[in-house]
Amino acid sequence: MTHPRFTALAQTLPASVPFVGPEAQERQSGAPFDARLGANENGFGPSPAVVATIKDHAHEAWMYGDPESYDLRSALAVHHSIALENIVVGGGIDGLLGNLVRLIIEHGDSVVTSDGAYPTFNYQVAGYGGTLHKVPYNDDFEDLDGLRAKARETGAKLIYLANPDNPMATWHDGPAIEDMVNNLSDGCLLILDEAYSDLAPASAKASLPIDHPGVIRMRTFSKGYGLAGMRVGYAMGAPELIRAFEKIRNHFGMNRLSQIAALEALKDQGGLRGIQQQVAQSKVRIDAIATDNGLTCLPSATNFVAMDCGQDGDFARRVLASLIAQGIFVRMPFVAPQDRCIRISCGPEIEMDHVANALPIALTAARD
Amino acid sequence: MTHPRFTALAQTLPASVPFVGPEAQERQSGAPFDARLGANENGFGPSPAVVATIKDHAHEAWMYGDPESYDLRSALAVHHSIALENIVVGGGIDGLLGNLVRLIIEHGDSVVTSDGAYPTFNYQVAGYGGTLHKVPYNDDFEDLDGLRAKARETGAKLIYLANPDNPMATWHDGPAIEDMVNNLSDGCLLILDEAYSDLAPASAKASLPIDHPGVIRMRTFSKGYGLAGMRVGYAMGAPELIRAFEKIRNHFGMNRLSQIAALEALKDQGGLRGIQQQVAQSKVRIDAIATDNGLTCLPSATNFVAMDCGQDGDFARRVLASLIAQGIFVRMPFVAPQDRCIRISCGPEIEMDHVANALPIALTAARD
Repeated sequence: MTHPRFTALAQTLPASVPFVGPEAQERQSGAPFDARLGANENGFGPSPAVVATIKDHAHEAWMYGDPESYDLRSALAVHHSIALENIVVGGGIDGLLGNLVRLIIEHGDSVVTSDGAYPTFNYQVAGYGGTLHKVPYNDDFEDLDGLRAKARETGAKLIYLANPDNPMATWHDGPAIEDMVNNLSDGCLLILDEAYSDLAPASAKASLPIDHPGVIRMRTFSKGYGLAGMRVGYAMGAPELIRAFEKIRNHFGMNRLSQIAALEALKDQGGLRGIQQQVAQSKVRIDAIATDNGLTCLPSATNFVAMDCGQDGDFARRVLASLIAQGIFVRMPFVAPQDRCIRISCGPEIEMDHVANALPIALTAARD
Repeated sequence: MTHPRFTALAQTLPASVPFVGPEAQERQSGAPFDARLGANENGFGPSPAVVATIKDHAHEAWMYGDPESYDLRSALAVHHSIALENIVVGGGIDGLLGNLVRLIIEHGDSVVTSDGAYPTFNYQVAGYGGTLHKVPYNDDFEDLDGLRAKARETGAKLIYLANPDNPMATWHDGPAIEDMVNNLSDGCLLILDEAYSDLAPASAKASLPIDHPGVIRMRTFSKGYGLAGMRVGYAMGAPELIRAFEKIRNHFGMNRLSQIAALEALKDQGGLRGIQQQVAQSKVRIDAIATDNGLTCLPSATNFVAMDCGQDGDFARRVLASLIAQGIFVRMPFVAPQDRCIRISCGPEIEMDHVANALPIALTAARD
């Protein structure tokens, strides 16, 4: 008898990692990166008030966090003008995606996403035995009609859509999302990943009834609020769906300091506005760096920019490899033709200076 | 068509919570507890060095944690004289139990535990469709032979055993555990939950080859190191089993500050010894409070004490209710005859003073 006796599904799964972390790359190269711009973290955050709050509460780390994240959920309910029963807090959007897929997907169930979209979602779908159907991007935008049509064709239980999009930073305006949600096939739930919505123009925000049974919205403190390391995300939706998370989530999984930090971040909307301004300035700088090198950037509604290297994926991969070798942590889209771009997160000016210095060298190397 | 379309299993699961948190009780009563002694948290921790480390790194909260928890795992490997490939770090033992059950248990698979043992484990087994078989305690000790026999009888894939035990605080010496592991039925894996081992006598520690295919050991920074709110646990076992976690775990789920805090805690073994002394003193105090009230305590190898209220479960529940009404957060075992006890975590003297004041009132009330 095999020992241990893994499930049939677990036996078939590869040991896969959606992303390799920058620390692993640093260990391999033996040197720290000079610029950490590859994971769409937010080097402008968290705000000073949030840092001070973490310090003030560090001595409380001996206490489990409130399993209901009550204070944070209450503040989020006020912030979004919705009820407590519409909100579940979890360990980042990654954790919530895992919970949601577990609730809905079993062996052979169909799921639709864009080809080149979030690998961590795909990892969760595979991890519960679901079958992924991928729809190409349409001119660097997620293809709303294509996603809907594929879901109808495959009887999909879930569609994953990030708006604004990652890795392209493009976005659809609210009404297009609303139209999509209102015209889904029967029994299909749209996961609307709004991780970057705190950095997006108001026009990108969909206006949808919170009790709409066709959509669950996911938000995070990792991007706009600069708290990626604290792992706080939340999902908003109809009470029946939100309540279902109570059946399976790790109730005592939420870090106490993370709950406190996220609550302070939400209160500190002035801090968020400051970060938004810094991100906007950083995007102007990244644009200028591209222009200086004869390249162009896609429009961005996020804290990162897809920079079009102007040739094919192999060329962009050579650019990326050179940047990494020069101490610049960046990543790039996985799928053609989007893989002609490299993806650069916004960050402090000193890190942008490193990019400005390294990019011409990388382009020259790639052209050789 | 129902909307959303939950899995067959998710539809049958109740929305259950293994424990109600003290914060929920405080919200209900409208007053904070004077003593927080119900969740076996460690009010003596974390050590000053660990608190200082969290503060020093608070500004780094914008960075995701290393998905490999490499620095922490490396330090743990040295600490335990094992290899990196023998260790996986996760969000507390709770999170790791969820991962392990997911890897091994599918619909109808048998799992064995003690009746009255850790409800969060039972929650995970139910959450993946497993069938739980419960073995009674034997004179307030987990029944090693009974667990083994039940596993053999039911063809169980997993046995759960906490040593030292929770909620009774009793323990088996290492050789008894070793004997159990070496005589498991074919294809049965023992989950050895050693959450309290940092507070146990050396004699309670089993000596087992790290590559033994019949056992996985789980440890935590929540108890001895006083970092429950940071959610850091780890599992140790054979590489094949540890590697399987890579297939399903939330790779970027580990909080960055938590990794840093745990690493510092591990380095600060002097801090741990200080906590061990305070816990030992606190147990003497709890014993004295029991004696003053004509009660006895069970021997304890943990940072909590099972205090025998001397009558049945209904009596102990009345004692518990009065203590809670008096602002003392405590819990009690769920199952007879262990439910004749209440469970009191060790804690600072001022909280023990509250217990000393409240207990006579609670006993009088319970006797009325």
